[in-house]
Amino acid sequence: MDAAQEAQKREAFRQAVVNTLERRLFYIPSFKIYRGVAGLYDYAPPGCAVKANVLAFWRQHFVLEENMLEVDCPCVTPEVVLKASGHVEKFTDLMVKDEKTGTCYRADHLLKDYCKEKLEKDTNLSAEKTAELKHVLAMLDDFSAEELGAKIKGYGITAPDTKNALSDPYPFNLMFQTSIGPSGISPGYMRPETAQGIFVNFKDLYYYNGNKLPFAAAQIGQAFRNEISPRQGLLRVREFTLAEIEHFVDPDDKSHPKFSEVSKLEFLMFPREDQVSGRQARRIPIGEAVSQGIVNNETLGYFIGRVYLFLSQLGIDKDRLRFRQHLANEMAHYAADCWDAEIECSYGWIECVGIADRSAYDLRAHTDKSGVALVAQEKFSEPREVEKLIITPVKKELGLAFKGNQKMVVEALEAMGEKEAMGMKADLEVKGEAEFLVCTLDKVVTIKKNMVSISKEKKKEHQRVFTPSVIELSFGIGRIIYCLYEHSFYTRANKDGDEQLNVFRFPPLVAPIKCTVFPLVQNQQYEEVAKKIAKSLTAVGISYKIDITGTSIGKRYARTDELGVPLAITVDSTTSVTVRERDSKQQIRVNVDEVASLVKSVTDGVSTWNDILWKYPTHSS
Amino acid sequence: MDAAQEAQKREAFRQAVVNTLERRLFYIPSFKIYRGVAGLYDYAPPGCAVKANVLAFWRQHFVLEENMLEVDCPCVTPEVVLKASGHVEKFTDLMVKDEKTGTCYRADHLLKDYCKEKLEKDTNLSAEKTAELKHVLAMLDDFSAEELGAKIKGYGITAPDTKNALSDPYPFNLMFQTSIGPSGISPGYMRPETAQGIFVNFKDLYYYNGNKLPFAAAQIGQAFRNEISPRQGLLRVREFTLAEIEHFVDPDDKSHPKFSEVSKLEFLMFPREDQVSGRQARRIPIGEAVSQGIVNNETLGYFIGRVYLFLSQLGIDKDRLRFRQHLANEMAHYAADCWDAEIECSYGWIECVGIADRSAYDLRAHTDKSGVALVAQEKFSEPREVEKLIITPVKKELGLAFKGNQKMVVEALEAMGEKEAMGMKADLEVKGEAEFLVCTLDKVVTIKKNMVSISKEKKKEHQRVFTPSVIELSFGIGRIIYCLYEHSFYTRANKDGDEQLNVFRFPPLVAPIKCTVFPLVQNQQYEEVAKKIAKSLTAVGISYKIDITGTSIGKRYARTDELGVPLAITVDSTTSVTVRERDSKQQIRVNVDEVASLVKSVTDGVSTWNDILWKYPTHSS
Repeated sequence: MDAAQEAQKREAFRQAVVNTLERRLFYIPSFKIYRGVAGLYDYAPPGCAVKANVLAFWRQHFVLEENMLEVDCPCVTPEVVLKASGHVEKFTDLMVKDEKTGTCYRADHLLKDYCKEKLEKDTNLSAEKTAELKHVLAMLDDFSAEELGAKIKGYGITAPDTKNALSDPYPFNLMFQTSIGPSGISPGYMRPETAQGIFVNFKDLYYYNGNKLPFAAAQIGQAFRNEISPRQGLLRVREFTLAEIEHFVDPDDKSHPKFSEVSKLEFLMFPREDQVSGRQARRIPIGEAVSQGIVNNETLGYFIGRVYLFLSQLGIDKDRLRFRQHLANEMAHYAADCWDAEIECSYGWIECVGIADRSAYDLRAHTDKSGVALVAQEKFSEPREVEKLIITPVKKELGLAFKGNQKMVVEALEAMGEKEAMGMKADLEVKGEAEFLVCTLDKVVTIKKNMVSISKEKKKEHQRVFTPSVIELSFGIGRIIYCLYEHSFYTRANKDGDEQLNVFRFPPLVAPIKCTVFPLVQNQQYEEVAKKIAKSLTAVGISYKIDITGTSIGKRYARTDELGVPLAITVDSTTSVTVRERDSKQQIRVNVDEVASLVKSVTDGVSTWNDILWKYPTHSS
Repeated sequence: MDAAQEAQKREAFRQAVVNTLERRLFYIPSFKIYRGVAGLYDYAPPGCAVKANVLAFWRQHFVLEENMLEVDCPCVTPEVVLKASGHVEKFTDLMVKDEKTGTCYRADHLLKDYCKEKLEKDTNLSAEKTAELKHVLAMLDDFSAEELGAKIKGYGITAPDTKNALSDPYPFNLMFQTSIGPSGISPGYMRPETAQGIFVNFKDLYYYNGNKLPFAAAQIGQAFRNEISPRQGLLRVREFTLAEIEHFVDPDDKSHPKFSEVSKLEFLMFPREDQVSGRQARRIPIGEAVSQGIVNNETLGYFIGRVYLFLSQLGIDKDRLRFRQHLANEMAHYAADCWDAEIECSYGWIECVGIADRSAYDLRAHTDKSGVALVAQEKFSEPREVEKLIITPVKKELGLAFKGNQKMVVEALEAMGEKEAMGMKADLEVKGEAEFLVCTLDKVVTIKKNMVSISKEKKKEHQRVFTPSVIELSFGIGRIIYCLYEHSFYTRANKDGDEQLNVFRFPPLVAPIKCTVFPLVQNQQYEEVAKKIAKSLTAVGISYKIDITGTSIGKRYARTDELGVPLAITVDSTTSVTVRERDSKQQIRVNVDEVASLVKSVTDGVSTWNDILWKYPTHSS
């Protein structure tokens, strides 16, 4: 199959999935009766149940099993917080406007579309031009506004809808802005991530944890991103649910006590080096990735392993899940290491979980802005002797020498690091003076021996005060769910072989409805049994759907398969019933009184279908 | 105790509760390090767990047990939806501004404070003045902007902070406004309630339910209200979690099949008549309230009963919970009946759940605005003969008679109800003409016999098309939780009787942490047993806290009582442990291997402490 055929096949598969999702009301474009709003979707009943199940499992797998501190902060966020985090300044995309109609486009999208189309459809491209366009695609994220503008002008790209000329690219802030309170003088934003709510609470959470590191805080909630022109359906939306974890750790000790529990796990990893040198992702045991230094530290490695377990237990296909390390140009300057869990779907490899060692950046940013020290202390069991550098500028001499510039010189002297200071000390002792660059004056001055005293003193310290590093995990819940839909979907022929039926092979954990209850034929006796079973299912907390329409049993199975219901109970006697498993279509006979607890044991994961299959007589219809 | 002492006592109690909540991090004022934002609070770890438990129980009690269709819609909402719902026009509070500083106040709050203070502190008030102020307080919600302004001027009320003069009151819309997309021409709001997301999806949800009524849709999510000046701490906030239910029902049949399951329940009800005539709330079985016509219909009564069960099972004190019917002036013109579940706390009786029969209002509003018919059909098993009113205006004659006003006259004729039309028919037959008020012209015109034909025809109909009524339940989750805190809080003396200790008597269902695990003394053996127990608790999904600090056992108990932890496990041997219940302080001895399943059975509600107490040897320390 060539690339175009591949693309067509992917597109057809996606259409089949999306049609089923829309028809069975997994989701609805929001405000549909008003013709909707791009990038906003509702989770309708089965989709909402899938989401609730994914979040409940996330809570169990991360919050409960790791004893994390869960918080729940508001979406409305005052400007000062997002200035500190950098979002007010930097959370932007470059936008161009149709110069006549004012329609807005993402500049990089237009350039990307142009290059892709040229590469795919222009058969006369020279080798040189092909290489150029490929280079542009690779560099897309790195272009400045000016560079993007130059390319758009250079290639003669116009507005896709009207062919009108486009404005120069300029940054558009992607936060939804609002105003807090009635005065109009307190700008606020809808949070673009949940993480900041955790960072600003560091001090209280650290206290709650008994002033001990490491600990993790977690938050599930809505986040907002006012996309310029949303594309890719459910993957790029304007409002979404994030589940985030901020694990605070001593920067000098990033080991993890439970690392051995995951170290043998082996899955697709795609280290930076392999990407740069054009190799493929490969299976590496996470223990090796850490010991070889591919992954920066044990804690980061531990969480990568836990994310792998989370996603594969949800039903994500292990062969279409990889952990990709950020390239140098993707990574923030302060980050120690970043990996994305990427899941392959019909749109390509999609970033679904970000896992990053952000070092001390976030806590420092809020410390600086708020003036509240977000730090941890390590109390020494006995005082430790440390050498401290003491720099004492002699202000009188400096004043005589530098007059109005005295203050700048004093500050620069005091700010010297150990190496620089000891160099100056040596120079002063040997030569009696030293050359010294004062950055704030932008010039080199001469410091004489009588202007400063530099020494090292031994001191006893009782504790160490430091800013913890943070290892952040950020789960895009909607993206994970969409990929799960694609990975769970398949079609199979009906009995007569004249129709293809849709099935979602959701694990019981995820399935929106755990079982259905049908009376085989419409009669009062069977209906009463069905209602009795329904009641016992409710009592044990199992979601079910009861179908007492007279539709044929085959049609009813097809309906429930399309919702991914793992088990179907058909009432065909007053004492026992038939239970059918979705994927194998195997059937067993179970007593009416036992059936609720059997369904519960399978859907809770206590037993598998194979565990129980041999315990009950099989049934052939 | 006089009123002032009562108020002081309530205030002191509230302070004790709030201090404990803040100290134990049930909540944190949001963005505290930046000095916070009025009306925004974080749920910190134990508060977040309480909230998750309340929502999980809500899902079980309503969504699962009633087979409701749960949806999850975005917070960002385009203007058109909130224009249709009336929020753009009417979701306002009256505001006054300090004329010098611009500080904003709610006009009714200032007037209320003035009256209350006068009544409480001015000992020279005449009987007449006292009556007047009380009347003002009673009428507060009914005043127009002009009336409020006149009172404020009349009483000489000034800005509380500066004593400056105040502006006239004017309406301030309480929705957070924003802009959707980059163009700036698509205004949007953060939703003030979740209900609209359900209404606009009625058609799809009705289809999902097999085109059958009744059915209910439910939604849990954030809602926003940009309060002018938030007061009352956690009760009046700018962002909050709502859990809402919209139950769609045939307006001709509001019976409920499960009504008999709640009809015997008896609780405090406060019907409109009793309020007006100055009586107290009284216990009425809900079955009687419906049969006596106090509550409009069975479905409304059924949900009132279910709300009672929900709140009392959460731990709300039944004696401080009442259902208050809206007075005529509180109720929207379209509503058939409205009741609020009110919970008494230190702030007085607080509306926590609204339960309203809103008739067809919401679906009609969106039908009108969107042009999409949000209706249900009842298919008749056999066609029914119905009499239909047929009004046929003769446009030619009307055109000659009314020229430019023809269209308005035609529309008014077509809009006549049966009674009016039959009256006109009689007049036309007898007198040859009829007087007719055309509202849109604001005048009475004369209609002649040749201008319109009116008849009744018998028709066979195969179905009935109608707009369903909606019975709405709206739960303010944060308010319920705050009242629960107050109702669960008590203090008791410590062993030595020299200190008062705080306890939250949360039912296990609600408790943020289900149990704690302490080794009695710090030693490795006990610590290992503690860790083993911790692991088995995690495996069965029980949240716990492990405390291996060497703090005294009494202090550790006090700490967990303050978090409302129902059970504490003390490891004092390697084979069996002591389990202590929070409120009774009773202790039993349980095998290490059994303890996790014992805790689970109590916290899942399968057993009570009293059930298990006699099964195990008691322990006296």
